[in-house]
Amino acid sequence: MAMKEYKGYLVDLDGTMYKGSKQIHGASEFVEYLESKNTPFLFLTNNSSKTVGQISEKLNNLGVKAKPDQVYTSSLATADYIRNEKEGARVFVIGEEGLSHAIKQEGLELVEDHADYVVIGIDRNINYEKFAKACLQVRSGATFISTNGDIAIPTERGMMPGNGALTSVISVSTGAEPIFVGKPEPLIMKRALKRLGFSEAEVLMVGDNYNTDIKAGMKAGIDTLMVETGLSSFDEIKDMEHQPTYKCDNLLQWLIH
Amino acid sequence: MAMKEYKGYLVDLDGTMYKGSKQIHGASEFVEYLESKNTPFLFLTNNSSKTVGQISEKLNNLGVKAKPDQVYTSSLATADYIRNEKEGARVFVIGEEGLSHAIKQEGLELVEDHADYVVIGIDRNINYEKFAKACLQVRSGATFISTNGDIAIPTERGMMPGNGALTSVISVSTGAEPIFVGKPEPLIMKRALKRLGFSEAEVLMVGDNYNTDIKAGMKAGIDTLMVETGLSSFDEIKDMEHQPTYKCDNLLQWLIH
Repeated sequence: MAMKEYKGYLVDLDGTMYKGSKQIHGASEFVEYLESKNTPFLFLTNNSSKTVGQISEKLNNLGVKAKPDQVYTSSLATADYIRNEKEGARVFVIGEEGLSHAIKQEGLELVEDHADYVVIGIDRNINYEKFAKACLQVRSGATFISTNGDIAIPTERGMMPGNGALTSVISVSTGAEPIFVGKPEPLIMKRALKRLGFSEAEVLMVGDNYNTDIKAGMKAGIDTLMVETGLSSFDEIKDMEHQPTYKCDNLLQWLIH
Repeated sequence: MAMKEYKGYLVDLDGTMYKGSKQIHGASEFVEYLESKNTPFLFLTNNSSKTVGQISEKLNNLGVKAKPDQVYTSSLATADYIRNEKEGARVFVIGEEGLSHAIKQEGLELVEDHADYVVIGIDRNINYEKFAKACLQVRSGATFISTNGDIAIPTERGMMPGNGALTSVISVSTGAEPIFVGKPEPLIMKRALKRLGFSEAEVLMVGDNYNTDIKAGMKAGIDTLMVETGLSSFDEIKDMEHQPTYKCDNLLQWLIH
């Protein structure tokens, strides 16, 4: 396989670096390889619930070296995007610690009413009042943003409702479609590239999920490497019109090219 | 206006009999007229949250005479429907008192897992765990039923999320479309007719909301009377392909025909 040298990497986490609380075969070697080449990279995740500090700690505990500033979440991209649109904006947030932390870090104001933006990320403490406040403020003209459209989250109990499913309460009730930030949307990719300081042609997007990771790369004009260590199999995507730039069983295979 | 004699009536509540806690002009006279003619009728509401006892009490307090067995809610229709499909079925319920009460009244079993049916009605105590249990059981093959598809509920604070919006969490996450019971679906109409003991041609559906009340009549093959005392105006429906059988400013006007 002809392989291009990439100046930077965007690397998915769940199904690419780890599964549950176990490191995926080759993940730490892959990261050590990038570090040894001084190749900049960002871990790119739709997970909005955790702070970058919590995620880097999880990676370190699994044996994958990662500093907080090497992690880029849909929460960070959301906060980045809003600050870029309106400095100090008033934001009503439905979500967990990772989202409200990111919003505050960007100097935005967390409010309960008269928000400029209504933002929703996965919230396992969701309740009717939160939905109500979101709907009322979207109807009053607040810009509606959702960290990601994932409809389900794999857990040990089975597939649990994802943020895309919670988001639909507000979109169905108000008729307003949100701006989705996370993969496969290009928004998170553009913000991540800006953070890395590279152009689309200079980086490779690595991930296991065809519908989020690989499509995100395709939509943003970024080359993609699909690994078969997570959700999608090569067999189920073989008839897709658009194929990943590269396919590898796992990340070790990529290193020994 | 040529007017047919109807053997029975189906009468909407919100916007037809009352608005908030106030009786609508002509409502009590209309009901007294039906009573004086010994014309059977059912109050027909998508509201799944209250028991028929609570609703008849509200009507009585407003000055509209109504016995509990003259009230037919989407909860009763849902419970009727399930018992008709499977006696003693196991039902997982998301909803308020009116729904769980109706389910139990029909001899169905309220369960937390291994349900035959997952039923959702408006639930202002909704939480993530309820959504999760519903999704897991729908994915395991439980039949998915929603009392009604109303996307928003008018309140003093503004338009709040309705049951159709909450329902979308489960349909979006699982990909399973629910059976909707309430207006404008024919299901509640068929069950109400059965309860009254009349055929489609023998009754008149009376309501203020074109998209629920009037469409429900049309879909079920029942004549309709639209009153302009609630949500829809004659002006906004004037270009609709399908018009109500009759239109009256209010119910007094109907009586003096």
